[in-house]
Amino acid sequence: MKQKVAVLGPGSWGTALAQVLAENGHEVKIWGNHPAQIDEINTYHTNRHYLPDLKIPESIQGCKEIEEAIEGADAVLFVVPTKAIRIVARQFNEAVKNKPVVIHASKGLEQDTHKRISEVLAEEITEENRQGIVVLSGPSHAEEVAVHDITTITAASKDEDLAKYVQTLFMNQYLRIYTNTDVVGVEMGAALKNIIALGAGALHGLSYGDDAKAAIMTRGLAEISRLGVAMGANPLTFIGLSGVGDLIVTCTSVHSRNWRAGNLLGKGHNLDEVLDNMGMIVEGVSTTKAAKELAETIGVQMPITETIYKVLYEGKDVRQACTELMLREGTFENEFTLE
Amino acid sequence: MKQKVAVLGPGSWGTALAQVLAENGHEVKIWGNHPAQIDEINTYHTNRHYLPDLKIPESIQGCKEIEEAIEGADAVLFVVPTKAIRIVARQFNEAVKNKPVVIHASKGLEQDTHKRISEVLAEEITEENRQGIVVLSGPSHAEEVAVHDITTITAASKDEDLAKYVQTLFMNQYLRIYTNTDVVGVEMGAALKNIIALGAGALHGLSYGDDAKAAIMTRGLAEISRLGVAMGANPLTFIGLSGVGDLIVTCTSVHSRNWRAGNLLGKGHNLDEVLDNMGMIVEGVSTTKAAKELAETIGVQMPITETIYKVLYEGKDVRQACTELMLREGTFENEFTLE
Repeated sequence: MKQKVAVLGPGSWGTALAQVLAENGHEVKIWGNHPAQIDEINTYHTNRHYLPDLKIPESIQGCKEIEEAIEGADAVLFVVPTKAIRIVARQFNEAVKNKPVVIHASKGLEQDTHKRISEVLAEEITEENRQGIVVLSGPSHAEEVAVHDITTITAASKDEDLAKYVQTLFMNQYLRIYTNTDVVGVEMGAALKNIIALGAGALHGLSYGDDAKAAIMTRGLAEISRLGVAMGANPLTFIGLSGVGDLIVTCTSVHSRNWRAGNLLGKGHNLDEVLDNMGMIVEGVSTTKAAKELAETIGVQMPITETIYKVLYEGKDVRQACTELMLREGTFENEFTLE
Repeated sequence: MKQKVAVLGPGSWGTALAQVLAENGHEVKIWGNHPAQIDEINTYHTNRHYLPDLKIPESIQGCKEIEEAIEGADAVLFVVPTKAIRIVARQFNEAVKNKPVVIHASKGLEQDTHKRISEVLAEEITEENRQGIVVLSGPSHAEEVAVHDITTITAASKDEDLAKYVQTLFMNQYLRIYTNTDVVGVEMGAALKNIIALGAGALHGLSYGDDAKAAIMTRGLAEISRLGVAMGANPLTFIGLSGVGDLIVTCTSVHSRNWRAGNLLGKGHNLDEVLDNMGMIVEGVSTTKAAKELAETIGVQMPITETIYKVLYEGKDVRQACTELMLREGTFENEFTLE
């Protein structure tokens, strides 16, 4: 059935998902706080800064005011950067007049509080203003979805019916959606994978090969899962699209920002030089700090994360760090019990 | 403590593991049934056909007779092709005079019987002739281990102490060993990954991108796990080195034979053309048939494997096959219950 959906955040992923919704026959409004960009969407049906080659469906309406975008919406999709989530959620909560399904497709942990995106949304949006919260996550380049490449992602919600509603909303012949009820696992996998991408890049910078890449991805996944499980996640979620799947895209694509930053670290540059060279935010750098602090608080072992932390923040030699990781005492592989 | 180890099979992986053992201070004999190759190892300390650049430690002794290699051995490592396992195990069983630990590092399922390597070994080697059976598996290129690149693999045995013995035997600063007690899961992951490599190659041949690669790897892993679990494996093993780890190496390296064969399929060649072009065995082709038959017998759904089977053996159009996979009814992601 045709739904009214508001997309908050006209970046590359927001725009690609808006296109999916429009192509699936829904009524889509997209809101952003750069008036020139909204004018471009409404007048030229393009969003050149984010997806230069995309012709946006003409049915998608750009909105300069959040009230206009969300009015009467059945569902509202948040796709803003992690650091803007709390502010936009607050704006939404003040402006909303009905009770839409809240969906988000952002990845990360809030700075300082280390909270997951859905926790921030739940804090800022009062319960009478939302049906529930659903997370969309998985291995997806906006550029590939925009050209109808095959993509698979997860819709996760504690409320399985809501996850299924979002599955129906987005699923089509190029975007396949799997449902999941493990919100903690899905959000933790999405946020923490960037740490491992830094490490995979560093090993490449050190001229290690395929075996080392597979090693850091697999054992990195093991410790991400360990932290996730300590916070209430299902370990099996990490074998899914938001875990392994997203990790594969992030660690094996040279287009990944975190991988590229890690590669520079491996070549011997220090953190300041890497950040100067990149000229943009490298999420994995702050996520490494957040995960290290969380792991210490909870009492979880994360040797790879801790090592990357020392390389980033304490100037530890990156090759020496690898050797120390390899020489730790031998251990058992399957650490979770199925209970 | 210095151990006497016999390596049966002087291919690239057998030679690289023999080198590891020698560098760890053990007494190593290596057996093969090509006399000229054994002469080369003993005279020139090289194995040019398999590892052209390797200088083999001089302490490694090549043997033309299996009796000579295994005499008094504390451990015997089988690294022969899957199709030779049963014959070599029989030869070993006739020649052995003590009771060594039996280790294997081969990957695959026996043709026709669909048995795992350790099952074949257990059938052919009587219990009084072995301490137990340990499987070595994981993401490893012999070429990388030979030059001391970082590599991590799993040693799996029902007997945890034996797995730890093998861990101690092989572990050093470039090869890190994790123990596991799930032999079924480790062997199934190693054998079935080649099916997914064919699929990942095919999607590349069809010009799909990173999202599709991550999709087939993640959902491929889900159905490999499904078959493995039906046969008694722990689902969490598939998130480990012999599952995800090996899958990453096999599906993201253009050196993978199965991936290259899949790539040709994706470009529109049929199976005969692909095999002609490759000029060597593509294990995934027979594994796809074995897995499809096993899945049907047990009653397990493997949509990707079934689709690849149809492309390989029934001439189904590869692009049409992708579309049909995407259009199946939406489903839930976490299918295993932790019990």
